[in-house]
Amino acid sequence: MIGLEGIHFMMPTPFDERGKVDEESIPALVDLAVKADCRGVVCLGVMGEASRLTDAESRLVSGRVIKEARGRVTVTVGTSSTGTEMAVQRSVQAVDLGATAVMVAPAPVAKQNLDAVFDYYKAMASAVNIPIVVQDYPKESNVFMPVSFIARLCQELEEVKYLKLEDPPTPPKVTAIKKLTGESLGIFGGLGGTFLYEELSRGACGTMTGFAYPEILVRVYNHMSQREPGKAAELFYRYLPLIRYEAQEGIGLSLRKEVLKRRGLLRCSRVRQPAAEIDEVTRQELYRLLDALELT
Amino acid sequence: MIGLEGIHFMMPTPFDERGKVDEESIPALVDLAVKADCRGVVCLGVMGEASRLTDAESRLVSGRVIKEARGRVTVTVGTSSTGTEMAVQRSVQAVDLGATAVMVAPAPVAKQNLDAVFDYYKAMASAVNIPIVVQDYPKESNVFMPVSFIARLCQELEEVKYLKLEDPPTPPKVTAIKKLTGESLGIFGGLGGTFLYEELSRGACGTMTGFAYPEILVRVYNHMSQREPGKAAELFYRYLPLIRYEAQEGIGLSLRKEVLKRRGLLRCSRVRQPAAEIDEVTRQELYRLLDALELT
Amino acid sequence: MIGLEGIHFMMPTPFDERGKVDEESIPALVDLAVKADCRGVVCLGVMGEASRLTDAESRLVSGRVIKEARGRVTVTVGTSSTGTEMAVQRSVQAVDLGATAVMVAPAPVAKQNLDAVFDYYKAMASAVNIPIVVQDYPKESNVFMPVSFIARLCQELEEVKYLKLEDPPTPPKVTAIKKLTGESLGIFGGLGGTFLYEELSRGACGTMTGFAYPEILVRVYNHMSQREPGKAAELFYRYLPLIRYEAQEGIGLSLRKEVLKRRGLLRCSRVRQPAAEIDEVTRQELYRLLDALELT
Amino acid sequence: MIGLEGIHFMMPTPFDERGKVDEESIPALVDLAVKADCRGVVCLGVMGEASRLTDAESRLVSGRVIKEARGRVTVTVGTSSTGTEMAVQRSVQAVDLGATAVMVAPAPVAKQNLDAVFDYYKAMASAVNIPIVVQDYPKESNVFMPVSFIARLCQELEEVKYLKLEDPPTPPKVTAIKKLTGESLGIFGGLGGTFLYEELSRGACGTMTGFAYPEILVRVYNHMSQREPGKAAELFYRYLPLIRYEAQEGIGLSLRKEVLKRRGLLRCSRVRQPAAEIDEVTRQELYRLLDALELT
Repeated sequence: MIGLEGIHFMMPTPFDERGKVDEESIPALVDLAVKADCRGVVCLGVMGEASRLTDAESRLVSGRVIKEARGRVTVTVGTSSTGTEMAVQRSVQAVDLGATAVMVAPAPVAKQNLDAVFDYYKAMASAVNIPIVVQDYPKESNVFMPVSFIARLCQELEEVKYLKLEDPPTPPKVTAIKKLTGESLGIFGGLGGTFLYEELSRGACGTMTGFAYPEILVRVYNHMSQREPGKAAELFYRYLPLIRYEAQEGIGLSLRKEVLKRRGLLRCSRVRQPAAEIDEVTRQELYRLLDALELT
Repeated sequence: MIGLEGIHFMMPTPFDERGKVDEESIPALVDLAVKADCRGVVCLGVMGEASRLTDAESRLVSGRVIKEARGRVTVTVGTSSTGTEMAVQRSVQAVDLGATAVMVAPAPVAKQNLDAVFDYYKAMASAVNIPIVVQDYPKESNVFMPVSFIARLCQELEEVKYLKLEDPPTPPKVTAIKKLTGESLGIFGGLGGTFLYEELSRGACGTMTGFAYPEILVRVYNHMSQREPGKAAELFYRYLPLIRYEAQEGIGLSLRKEVLKRRGLLRCSRVRQPAAEIDEVTRQELYRLLDALELT
Repeated sequence: MIGLEGIHFMMPTPFDERGKVDEESIPALVDLAVKADCRGVVCLGVMGEASRLTDAESRLVSGRVIKEARGRVTVTVGTSSTGTEMAVQRSVQAVDLGATAVMVAPAPVAKQNLDAVFDYYKAMASAVNIPIVVQDYPKESNVFMPVSFIARLCQELEEVKYLKLEDPPTPPKVTAIKKLTGESLGIFGGLGGTFLYEELSRGACGTMTGFAYPEILVRVYNHMSQREPGKAAELFYRYLPLIRYEAQEGIGLSLRKEVLKRRGLLRCSRVRQPAAEIDEVTRQELYRLLDALELT
Repeated sequence: MIGLEGIHFMMPTPFDERGKVDEESIPALVDLAVKADCRGVVCLGVMGEASRLTDAESRLVSGRVIKEARGRVTVTVGTSSTGTEMAVQRSVQAVDLGATAVMVAPAPVAKQNLDAVFDYYKAMASAVNIPIVVQDYPKESNVFMPVSFIARLCQELEEVKYLKLEDPPTPPKVTAIKKLTGESLGIFGGLGGTFLYEELSRGACGTMTGFAYPEILVRVYNHMSQREPGKAAELFYRYLPLIRYEAQEGIGLSLRKEVLKRRGLLRCSRVRQPAAEIDEVTRQELYRLLDALELT
């Protein structure tokens, strides 16, 4: 098995001015992750606007990302779906395309029903032979997974090797899960990286997030790996103003696409509708912050 | 324009024992609506498990339904989506396949934002030249549309000709909307038909629901059309025990598929996961009720 | 212990035209329950607008209800609260005032956390020595209690003797809970009585609901107790049009107060704000239905 | 009118080890705000656990806070309620006790209904003659107030002089509201102060938050008032790691009480149940962060 430990860049899906998938911007985004020394990329997550893509577009994006990765970074493909059959089908397709792992949030259920959630993951685990990253993001999925349930997923389903933890407050949940699962489950942070330092301190194995300067997160991670928590904290705190700014509710995706455009990695910062977008005042505020941090 | 006034049968999507779309059961379901003297059928709604179908399956189902209808009943195709581009694309595809109308609920938005909802419908109205049935079902969409907003949709978007009203209590909302829109907007009930009599009394033009005996709803509707409210009420109340029973939260779809199976119209009552299903005790309770009402 | 088995009338809290608690209307409401041969009354529930009463008003209402009951009917007092300390304090006060039982829904929690819900009930069980009726009403409380959790409450907390089940679909949940708890937990229906017949058939021990003609529910219950399910069903179905009508989402309380006013039991049908109220068209529709059912 | 512009300390309600209101800890908390040079204190907000206090406890707390303030700081009293009558009664009581202003979030409504929200504020505005601070906190109230609605409240209700804005992303909403209301509405930030710098840059008049070192926020505010945005940003970013840490979802209150205990201002860090509390690992993590920032 290929270990996923490290920093993963959550890729946005690029669109052109008319809202079509801009496949030709994908190589530059993968290259960003490679140059940043990321362990991998993740496509078709919330950041990738997966829920606003048709099946054909999803396949186009994941196929191209995998092709561009050329083994330089791992590729985790989001396959969360509103139904078990779709999730399985998408996961199998990801395997066929050559994905390193799949990332899956629970399908929405009318009522909190952990048995149904378990069956959903079980169906997926039976269908794929690559690692499953369980996404614990109740704000999006409306499913709350207690620590004991996450441990059960890990213990009973061999393919469940990782967790993407986005159920705040994340630091105590990292500790509580590690207590039950030890080294058998790798835990990634998310949520824009706003608690990266604390998550790593408590034993998280990396993060999967769309912060537009993944190289900064990689350096924080490397300091932690080299047992230099002081240097990690210093670096993390230095860029915290931006990490916080980019993680703003609703407009986070729009902000990141704007940064990636400024970095020359996207030709167009468009997000699909309905979605919140930033206005000119916010764009300037963002630019001033980037300038103050000497980020280009 | 073809008027949609009347009773529409919300079609379930048939699956076989392994969970695959059972295309061959579609003709019998369409025939049920034709024999019941329904005005039309509606496919790919909540009842049709649209959110648990792949794009290819959705196209397969709507294509086959339209083909089988052969002009005997209208076909309204559900094209609700989580994004504007998808909804437009699905609606255009429905037009191409020969749909009579499209039914569309608002895309989910993180925050109640009626301007975004308007833009969503505007994009759809620009893309299709057949009637749009706006589905007002806040329990599913998490979007609450005030009466004044619905009137605005009707007034500013020519294609918005109908409303499927599923925002309880529906009777007063029918009256409130009619006051603003008069004859320019046709209002359908839904929600299993539990308030069909009151909705029609207040000026609704029909209903779109999956009740498994649409012929009963047609007879109620016909009595109302012929100004025989007493007969309509008597008939409606006679079958209200079942109408109420089938409309149970969570298991409504499973109950209806069970009835359709008993009627010989479905080979398999399976619903896709994750979803609530009825157990044997409930199946027997359902059967006893059908027997008591002398329904076969 | 006094058994609560039977029909309980959920009392509305009467207000005068200016919105003040109209204490003098309480005796007539209690008398309605007594004359209807109800087993008991329940005050300070959702129907009693408990969340819109001050602490002093709550005490006034429950004290007066208990005083008027004079042992003719049991009095169950709603003591649901947004915090454990308040719930305990209100429950202790209910004991002091002479309540037969307390009815308590879980306090809202930011995230589904059944351990916190258990501790809440445990604190209450330690503080009172009268039966606790656990209210399972996720639509109001936002807490979903699985069958196994309800069984645990019953098994570990001696005072938890009853459940008010309002988590639809209720019939299968009655059966599932009975399978785990047998005779050790009495299950009441609610939700306006719309599934009273099915609930009793499956072993529920009564219902607690605000339907404005509790005498009808008592007759249905008596037929079931005397093993006359056919007569029970016939009677239940006869009045189902009204049971359904009164149970309408949002306006149910306003409708019931209107019926009670028409019956001469309330001087004023006012509900406290913010709340939905019925308009004149709806009032007339209600009146026509009462006339058709020959209810005065 | 006394202007509220500036930094306000959101006071926690102190409890003793048994969960009783610890009135004797109130003076030290008020003194903290005075020494920090805060413009005012706010009691009985979410931070004050208002929803878990009885009416008597609420009155005890607000009465004591006002007494201790002795005109040295303004006192804004939270009077949000689940019903209009209660909210009015609590607001009138706050006036009688000598409050400078009242802070009020919308009462929860079953469905987004801005007319009902307006009526709620209108009732309050008719009953009090002190400034009303409208709290815009959809995560707690489940009511989303569009910019145009907030402007309407300000324009039509004379007492509505301030807004506490906690609907993220807050910076663009500050700008959008200012565009409509100009100087007629003072806008406060909240949410732990995580966007204090941006909010002030865009014209907010201060913040009301429970950050346990209000003196830091005061210094940031003063730099902004003296047109020293560079110094304000530098100071703000220096303490951002802690501002972010304290603002963690669910445990924010517990963290702040822990800090205040460490500062010697609270004897006990207990929060009322049900609520999330920090564990020992988190306490130590917090302490290390305080040490790193040289905060005592």
